[in-house]
Amino acid sequence: MLLGGAALSGAGALMEKRKWRIGVAGLGTIGAALVELIAERPDFAPSGAAVAVTGVSARSRRRRSAAISDLPWFDDPVALACSDANDVFVELIGGGEGPAKAAVEAALSLGKPVVTANKALIAQHGAQLAGLAEAAGAPLLFEAAVMGGTPAVKMLREAMVGDEVELVAGILNGTCNYILTQMQASGRPFAEVLADAQRLGYAEADAIMDVGGFDAAHKISILAALAFGCAPTYGAAKIEGIETIEPLDIRLARDLGYCIKLIATAARFGAGVSVQVHPALTPLDHPLARVEGVSNALFIQGRRIGRIFIEGPGAGAGPTAAAVAADIADVMTAAVRPVFQRPAAALKPFAPAEPGSTLGQAYLRLMVRDEPGVIASLTETLAAAGVSIDSFLQKPVEGVGGVPIVLTTHRVAESVLSEATRRMAALPSLLEPPRLIRIARI
Amino acid sequence: MLLGGAALSGAGALMEKRKWRIGVAGLGTIGAALVELIAERPDFAPSGAAVAVTGVSARSRRRRSAAISDLPWFDDPVALACSDANDVFVELIGGGEGPAKAAVEAALSLGKPVVTANKALIAQHGAQLAGLAEAAGAPLLFEAAVMGGTPAVKMLREAMVGDEVELVAGILNGTCNYILTQMQASGRPFAEVLADAQRLGYAEADAIMDVGGFDAAHKISILAALAFGCAPTYGAAKIEGIETIEPLDIRLARDLGYCIKLIATAARFGAGVSVQVHPALTPLDHPLARVEGVSNALFIQGRRIGRIFIEGPGAGAGPTAAAVAADIADVMTAAVRPVFQRPAAALKPFAPAEPGSTLGQAYLRLMVRDEPGVIASLTETLAAAGVSIDSFLQKPVEGVGGVPIVLTTHRVAESVLSEATRRMAALPSLLEPPRLIRIARI
Repeated sequence: MLLGGAALSGAGALMEKRKWRIGVAGLGTIGAALVELIAERPDFAPSGAAVAVTGVSARSRRRRSAAISDLPWFDDPVALACSDANDVFVELIGGGEGPAKAAVEAALSLGKPVVTANKALIAQHGAQLAGLAEAAGAPLLFEAAVMGGTPAVKMLREAMVGDEVELVAGILNGTCNYILTQMQASGRPFAEVLADAQRLGYAEADAIMDVGGFDAAHKISILAALAFGCAPTYGAAKIEGIETIEPLDIRLARDLGYCIKLIATAARFGAGVSVQVHPALTPLDHPLARVEGVSNALFIQGRRIGRIFIEGPGAGAGPTAAAVAADIADVMTAAVRPVFQRPAAALKPFAPAEPGSTLGQAYLRLMVRDEPGVIASLTETLAAAGVSIDSFLQKPVEGVGGVPIVLTTHRVAESVLSEATRRMAALPSLLEPPRLIRIARI
Repeated sequence: MLLGGAALSGAGALMEKRKWRIGVAGLGTIGAALVELIAERPDFAPSGAAVAVTGVSARSRRRRSAAISDLPWFDDPVALACSDANDVFVELIGGGEGPAKAAVEAALSLGKPVVTANKALIAQHGAQLAGLAEAAGAPLLFEAAVMGGTPAVKMLREAMVGDEVELVAGILNGTCNYILTQMQASGRPFAEVLADAQRLGYAEADAIMDVGGFDAAHKISILAALAFGCAPTYGAAKIEGIETIEPLDIRLARDLGYCIKLIATAARFGAGVSVQVHPALTPLDHPLARVEGVSNALFIQGRRIGRIFIEGPGAGAGPTAAAVAADIADVMTAAVRPVFQRPAAALKPFAPAEPGSTLGQAYLRLMVRDEPGVIASLTETLAAAGVSIDSFLQKPVEGVGGVPIVLTTHRVAESVLSEATRRMAALPSLLEPPRLIRIARI
């Protein structure tokens, strides 16, 4: 079924196509789910025009479901991207370089619309690819790159443009959230919980992209670009993972009324933008504290709109394939808009916020010898560095050497906090380096 | 700044306009906020093309801010809608009939894009206006009609199209949510809290559209149309307001672990769709129970995507004007898509779900004489009607005549519940008709 035929003006031409032919490169769980979705509901797009997969490509030609095996096969994803047999190229190969990048560039250079779920590619080469796409008049869409089936990209790219976004922050990596939720529930250490998660399929065998915070950093870099009208600037993100979170910190944080979450934040500070991923103490009554397991959640704060909160599935073949399909439907509308929040030629990497201007509270855990004068020397060191204390907890804990002392600070500049931590590390009464965990600013 | 010039294909033509001229009809708080937003940030749209208000219309020509008084004035909104001096017509007059409808029809008939915040108009005449818009090749956008600055319309119209939506449910009226939040906090009766809300500007002088549930019903009718590919079918919505909620019910619900919220729901049941607005007992640990004051919140449940939750400001001049601006930016992309989820010619009113197929739990409060045999006769009546009891609470309450007995039922068909309530109302031991409040199904 087509929109009212002859009455459609110029832009209607593309809309009148009776069949949209899709090439899909990458046949992992998402690619397979997409092929099945399109086979099951070829008329899913609102215009009613038919969609069909007309070519596939993957690394290995192993045995696949009948629906996939019968499709025209391309050994080389670049050849698929360039083939006249499809109108839209869907890239689900993954990775910031190599065949994914080559194929996306090839398609865009020919003016062919591209839909991708590749966060590394967009976070690292988004501005360059946007330039290619806009010069060729081809859309480049990547809803599925962030928060899987939850439309964070569309919200920032389209729904928030009437406002000025000040902050985007949330939980963007389901694997880390699952591991931290499990650590909190069981009291078990990171390595054990990770091993379980890998056995259960909630974490990949090579989990460093997830647990190291790099995956969340790719995603927040993309959201920051959309929120602030900058180029995605992955290289400027400050990244800290969850590998060093100990059960002791989870217990002590809980005593103070917090849980620990991996929080990704992009915020304006003065003329700069701060993009960070780090574990953060999150108040137990905060909406982000209630995000459990593999869910993702995001706050968007705008000057006029105030705060919007969105929570949903952050990954999974079904939700992610549905997000790719929604992007294909978007291509079919022939909308002409910049790939990011501004035309590619105007996209500049953001200026990182000055460390002196990024204020926040922190949790400091110090393992000290049980001897007189220790607390005095600690508090003097902090005071001398300009850090004032918000709360203080000294609590004997069995099974750990020394006495753990936990402080939370008042709001303090990042640069002041680093200096204070450096000075404390030099104190002879400390049995191990101070453990610093930031307190969520949202 | 424009998108890469010559390389843009057909659809780019509209995009190349250097200036978009906007006519704004209706200069209440939202209209005034929109005029200010555009004056402050004429380059807000991602393409960078300039936007300017080039004509205004309102009921009275009273003294307004300088920014508005200097604009070309139209006494008749239809004349503004038809004027060659603007490219987009923004309708902020309100009301399902009269000048708002006439002006929107006039603009669409001329092929002029329309942006509106008018939920009554879209809920009552959406399918007809969609037909007009699509025949003329003009977009008709209404993000601001539902949830103010929170982009529920865009999510359902565009982001969920890869999935099949099964349920949309949430809190869509900030005035009711504010009143219920206040009643819960203070224990005061509806009429007093409403009067306060009117004094404070949280409720209109004529509050029936809000407290009667009609405003929420307009909004859920629009969301149902987008979710299920139907015509908006306001006439088929079952609507119950909050006027009859008593402090006693709020107290008793709390004893059972619930708060009371006005919940709007659209759900598929078999071949039909059920669209309802009614007060509902909501478990205290449910995300909707935590939505306080004038916020709005929505669950969207899709077959593949699972559940997405979104919360944000449901009204207010700033957020609503920002949503209208985002729609203007959407018009500038020249996207061609159906107004709803399917082309207008394919939009049919939904078939209401059979009362026998809509299952749910309910709270029943019965005010009975304090005499022997009363409970036996109640429970026998329920059992005979086929309703089984989930929990039972008999609690003396001071200051009310009789003894309140509260039951919650197991899941039961709407039709069975009505019959049971009818039979109970006939029992001589009842001092007043049974009070039925549904339990939220989400």
